[in-house]
Amino acid sequence: MRRAVVLLSGGLDSATAAALVKAEGYEVHALAVDYGQRHKAELDAARTVAAALQLASFRVVRVDLAALGGSALTADLPVPKDRADAEIGVGIPLTYVPARNTVLLGLGLAAADVLEAEAVVIGINALDCSGYPDCRPGFLEAMRRVAREGTRRGAEGLRIDVLAPLIEDSKADIVRRGIALGVPWGLTLSCYDPAEEAGRPTPCGRCDACLLRARGFAEAHEIDPTAPAVPTT
Amino acid sequence: MRRAVVLLSGGLDSATAAALVKAEGYEVHALAVDYGQRHKAELDAARTVAAALQLASFRVVRVDLAALGGSALTADLPVPKDRADAEIGVGIPLTYVPARNTVLLGLGLAAADVLEAEAVVIGINALDCSGYPDCRPGFLEAMRRVAREGTRRGAEGLRIDVLAPLIEDSKADIVRRGIALGVPWGLTLSCYDPAEEAGRPTPCGRCDACLLRARGFAEAHEIDPTAPAVPTT
Repeated sequence: MRRAVVLLSGGLDSATAAALVKAEGYEVHALAVDYGQRHKAELDAARTVAAALQLASFRVVRVDLAALGGSALTADLPVPKDRADAEIGVGIPLTYVPARNTVLLGLGLAAADVLEAEAVVIGINALDCSGYPDCRPGFLEAMRRVAREGTRRGAEGLRIDVLAPLIEDSKADIVRRGIALGVPWGLTLSCYDPAEEAGRPTPCGRCDACLLRARGFAEAHEIDPTAPAVPTT
Repeated sequence: MRRAVVLLSGGLDSATAAALVKAEGYEVHALAVDYGQRHKAELDAARTVAAALQLASFRVVRVDLAALGGSALTADLPVPKDRADAEIGVGIPLTYVPARNTVLLGLGLAAADVLEAEAVVIGINALDCSGYPDCRPGFLEAMRRVAREGTRRGAEGLRIDVLAPLIEDSKADIVRRGIALGVPWGLTLSCYDPAEEAGRPTPCGRCDACLLRARGFAEAHEIDPTAPAVPTT
């Protein structure tokens, strides 16, 4: 059986990417990364999503990106809130975590070499993203070459690829694809700055991740079971 | 002043690479990575080398590659010893740490984005290496593209490069270059499996790293101040 390592953050995109490759017949091994993110609740969401999707395995690897700082997700900087549609995706916001996806995919490739998996899957999408450089098609192409050149599998002539099945999708596309695949939206968490209420993380509804998610559900004419009662936009 | 982030392991190659870029006029920021290596003594060596070379800063970042296993350097597998010259570099040995250099360079690029450095420097060399896929020129080229595509600096059109100034050198070349630059060999530690004697790490003299180092010093007709009293080959 073909194996894939899926980078699972617990959010909408990676859950859908995992469901997609599973539906394509891969044995899916989930890799969540504790990189010092303030929204550590996403790791619990990832674990729950992996169980619900009946993935073959789930593991968490730690990397201390917070030691390098430079991002509102890992350092004591304010997470931007209430940005207008026209602002999101223009320039690189404070929530960019320097070189995060290079590190995450590096860890995914390490796992692929160990698990003898032929693909590492990441849920990046270039359209409805926050303007992160490491979500763009050129970055994906570069990492594909790294996969072939820098791994045991590549050196031995075995297949090793980096797949980003959602890279050309809008958030609304992703919502539609996820619904067709039965992705358990209620278990996912996209928010960069969740509050904790009654022991459960509650999305803020105002960060880029919440706003992009809300727009995706609205454009797909679907209900997000995790949405705050009244949208703030 | 131009800044560079140098991946410093405490060994011969990275110490020489750091001295080289410093001599070229860069302000050099050292990054050592605690990836769960059994030879953790190399981190102390890196710190001491950074101080001796008067680098601008030194930091250690942790990443738990040991959680993924698959290598004699991070898991409970035997480090190969006493391999013949003809064996070293043929095939991929047990000491290969899956995708390690992708992760290390990812961390280096993260540091470069935060420190506004225009280069990440790594001491890999393709000739006298242990046969690791992520020491080859094709891998370096792939990571250069990642640097341009996947970082803030790249996206903003600023210079960001990955430099491997020793990639075409033999170990003897590196010894000669290091001597010309005054690299403090006595502070470096290359061994994969050092013993501890009187609170100081002592190289085993028998792993690939020790053998390649001994061969380099021998070919350069130089004395290695850290070498065991009697070579075992």
